[in-house]
Amino acid sequence: MRSIGIFDSGLGGLTVVREFMRQLPKEDLIYLGDTAHLPYGTKSASTITRFTLNNILFLLRQKVKFIVVACNTASSLSLDTIRGYFQIPIIGVIQPGVKEAISLTKTGCIGVIGTPATIKSKAYECQIKKIDPSIRVISKACPLFVPLVEEGWVNHPETITIAKTYLRSLVDSNRRMDVLILGCTHYPLLKSVIKKVLGGAIRLVDSAQQVVREANSILQNEGLINNNRKAKGSYRFYVTDDPAEFTRQAARLLGFRLSHVRKVNNV
Amino acid sequence: MRSIGIFDSGLGGLTVVREFMRQLPKEDLIYLGDTAHLPYGTKSASTITRFTLNNILFLLRQKVKFIVVACNTASSLSLDTIRGYFQIPIIGVIQPGVKEAISLTKTGCIGVIGTPATIKSKAYECQIKKIDPSIRVISKACPLFVPLVEEGWVNHPETITIAKTYLRSLVDSNRRMDVLILGCTHYPLLKSVIKKVLGGAIRLVDSAQQVVREANSILQNEGLINNNRKAKGSYRFYVTDDPAEFTRQAARLLGFRLSHVRKVNNV
Repeated sequence: MRSIGIFDSGLGGLTVVREFMRQLPKEDLIYLGDTAHLPYGTKSASTITRFTLNNILFLLRQKVKFIVVACNTASSLSLDTIRGYFQIPIIGVIQPGVKEAISLTKTGCIGVIGTPATIKSKAYECQIKKIDPSIRVISKACPLFVPLVEEGWVNHPETITIAKTYLRSLVDSNRRMDVLILGCTHYPLLKSVIKKVLGGAIRLVDSAQQVVREANSILQNEGLINNNRKAKGSYRFYVTDDPAEFTRQAARLLGFRLSHVRKVNNV
Repeated sequence: MRSIGIFDSGLGGLTVVREFMRQLPKEDLIYLGDTAHLPYGTKSASTITRFTLNNILFLLRQKVKFIVVACNTASSLSLDTIRGYFQIPIIGVIQPGVKEAISLTKTGCIGVIGTPATIKSKAYECQIKKIDPSIRVISKACPLFVPLVEEGWVNHPETITIAKTYLRSLVDSNRRMDVLILGCTHYPLLKSVIKKVLGGAIRLVDSAQQVVREANSILQNEGLINNNRKAKGSYRFYVTDDPAEFTRQAARLLGFRLSHVRKVNNV
């Protein structure tokens, strides 16, 4: 009856929490937002790995049975290194998104947008090529998307202009991209802007749904699933910086009503 | 013959380093950019104070004789709390900027722009009112300015549009603001954009020059100045994240050519 642990650098990972609540409502969840150290996406692999290890060790101290790295940057740069360190299963958000994108593309050309660190790591590209080397991958870092979301400017005219600047190279018609992976947990909040810029023909992949499907199948296989109890799961939320600000932002950006977010020191 | 210690969350504080090199060329300098934890300006007072204490303790381990908090957010939120903890003199960037702004204003209306944390702290407003309660202070947080500078978009059309959005409330002609304090070490890099938006009549105050003047007078009074030696000072640079990225950004944004930046763990 142990919990599932989920972490992200901030609140983007709550999109994954929401999917867990929907698909696996009997599971207990513990969420950690490493808000004192965000953003991860502009930092180096060694620093991101240090933060990631601290987050995992925190969740292990809460006696979780399974960990989801609900942060694309940490999944891209740190997961391969650290997965082997621990006994419990740990999954990231890259592979589920990749599988979904490959199943959707008809033209064989997939776009990826993400933080500078994610894009520089080529994690998405490598995963896609490993499954199907014939697929063309075009990618673009969008460093201002995270601060724009955190400023709450999800429908501002400036955000549309900036999205056009970033996405211009991807929509070049010669490339025939028909699927775009939203390779950062903040980006689903910009879905309507991105759709406006790209037009309706391009499918957007946001990995939250697929991640929880993968989690479900691992929990089943390992006999870790909470099948039998009748009650709904319980949820605990932790952050490394101010809980009040996190609670406000979660409500404003994601419609989450969190009643008791706790602060931890996680250095 | 000990060094002067200077820290900032990132590279903005290099504008203060440049002023030290110009005004006090015989002094040895040690700079720390806490790049693993940036930005400070969107975080809480307790987290910023924890980072600030770590930075000061690092500089003390380097046996500095004097410390400059070259970060407006840390100066605003943490300096009053921690100054009393330490024996050596520590100065921030708020008071020097305030003095300069008060000496320049003719209309008695001063504007302040800064990070959300700096503006919310009301540190500038309090300092100004303490010196002259009759002065009107209008302030505005500009959270996207730091990511725009770090993206290198200092002359982009998007940056001008965003600056117009932020500064609109300040240029309301009824208010007669004639001086604007650039209350973040990143903002001097946006001087030309801000001038374009505000017009030429408003004076911009960037505290680097004044900070070094204040440092000079304290060093003189305390007998800590390096007067006698003939050689130029030596400079050491430390960061808490990737040195290569810091070196690149310092060159790209500030024209600094740093040959040997060292990484430290400063948690």
